[in-house]
Amino acid sequence: MSRPLILVTNDDGITSLGILNLVTVMKELGEVLVVAPDGPQSGMGHAITVGDTLRLTESNIFDGVRAYECSGTPADCVKMARHFVCKDNRQPDIVVSGINHGSNTSISVLYSGTMSAAIEGAIEGTPAIGFSLCDYSHKANFSHTPEIVKRITKQVLEKGLQKGVALNVNIPPKRNEAIKGIRVCRQANAKWVEEFVERLDPNGRKYYWMTGNFVNFDKGEDNDEWAIANNYVSVVPCQFDLTAHSAIPVLNEEWEILG
Amino acid sequence: MSRPLILVTNDDGITSLGILNLVTVMKELGEVLVVAPDGPQSGMGHAITVGDTLRLTESNIFDGVRAYECSGTPADCVKMARHFVCKDNRQPDIVVSGINHGSNTSISVLYSGTMSAAIEGAIEGTPAIGFSLCDYSHKANFSHTPEIVKRITKQVLEKGLQKGVALNVNIPPKRNEAIKGIRVCRQANAKWVEEFVERLDPNGRKYYWMTGNFVNFDKGEDNDEWAIANNYVSVVPCQFDLTAHSAIPVLNEEWEILG
Repeated sequence: MSRPLILVTNDDGITSLGILNLVTVMKELGEVLVVAPDGPQSGMGHAITVGDTLRLTESNIFDGVRAYECSGTPADCVKMARHFVCKDNRQPDIVVSGINHGSNTSISVLYSGTMSAAIEGAIEGTPAIGFSLCDYSHKANFSHTPEIVKRITKQVLEKGLQKGVALNVNIPPKRNEAIKGIRVCRQANAKWVEEFVERLDPNGRKYYWMTGNFVNFDKGEDNDEWAIANNYVSVVPCQFDLTAHSAIPVLNEEWEILG
Repeated sequence: MSRPLILVTNDDGITSLGILNLVTVMKELGEVLVVAPDGPQSGMGHAITVGDTLRLTESNIFDGVRAYECSGTPADCVKMARHFVCKDNRQPDIVVSGINHGSNTSISVLYSGTMSAAIEGAIEGTPAIGFSLCDYSHKANFSHTPEIVKRITKQVLEKGLQKGVALNVNIPPKRNEAIKGIRVCRQANAKWVEEFVERLDPNGRKYYWMTGNFVNFDKGEDNDEWAIANNYVSVVPCQFDLTAHSAIPVLNEEWEILG
């Protein structure tokens, strides 16, 4: 097999430490192409730019790697990469996104630009992985991530993924104890409870900063929150079919307005 | 039962025709509270505002209805409504979002701010519905939507919804023929193939507008695309657990790096 073409993106922006780590690992595994946001896009979910313009600018930020910075969202980056940068050439063999600075376990997968870029890959039928480091601290330590990222990416390149599946990989923070292993998990049942910090602008008008506390309702041991808390890497296979299939027969039975 | 508290939001912004239609119907069904974006938020997916400030301003745009415009995304609107506007009072009995100007069938559910607001309701355990009119024309005709919106919302208020489920309701465009009925569907297997229109700014630098063509791969008759094409209202129950549960045993069997 020729060296795979690896599309790298993220949501923390092209200058972030996490993407530098990811690019460094991917250079060992294949031919790397980067299309990443030109600034932070955290919390962008699966947003795309439909009512505004987009820019795409070549960048020499990564030594020996073809790279572009994009003014749009992470999902835009994957779309623009396919359309412009891979145009008339082969499409990526894999899409990798991250390494996100902060956790994307559980419900955070919905808000995560990192994972939306990966899911955008899955929509196009390309195996895709979003990587996140569960460490929010300003000086998050990424030193243990390259080995894990490499092992998982190699496995996906070798085995492939089911059609329509993207992996949500979360890596525990660097601790004294070594990581215990890698576990396939389901998305934990948890949510954010928001707080809003109120401030006054110089004109005396109110504005708010959204913050939040993560609340885990899940008592199981087969979910990503349990894995991270117990020092395992979590791998959640994600899909873009949002249909709650189990609800279809319920509605068909209960509703009186169908036909 | 006392009159239900109905939280209304959308992604086209508080001044759009679709939300005016929705508010008008909801006034017949309960006590209405509006928290909607202060401008267009189409394509915002499940974005939330984490790196910027938020504003929330009271509005008298709807006659006799308590309403607020929010500077954030549709998901932000639902979060702010719960935190500020409903604070120390009861929480909404239902969240309704829309009526979106344009289709949100199939894969568009991922990019849709309308549906993300509804899913945000489901995350909080509140029954929620996103309504969309499958008519992109500038002068979309909403005249047939109130009756459908009312019938479906009444049914949800009466029967409730399974925990964690939000409904994605798409309404066919106004045609000469009357709508045939309402169908519970799964999300169709379809996607957008993007095109990018290239322009030069006054400084001679390139920029792009993203456009796209919708391509339907789905030959089934139990999906939302089929329903709309055949003049039925489609109702897709959606969930926020993205886990591809069927992929878990496959990965557990195939991968050699687990443990």
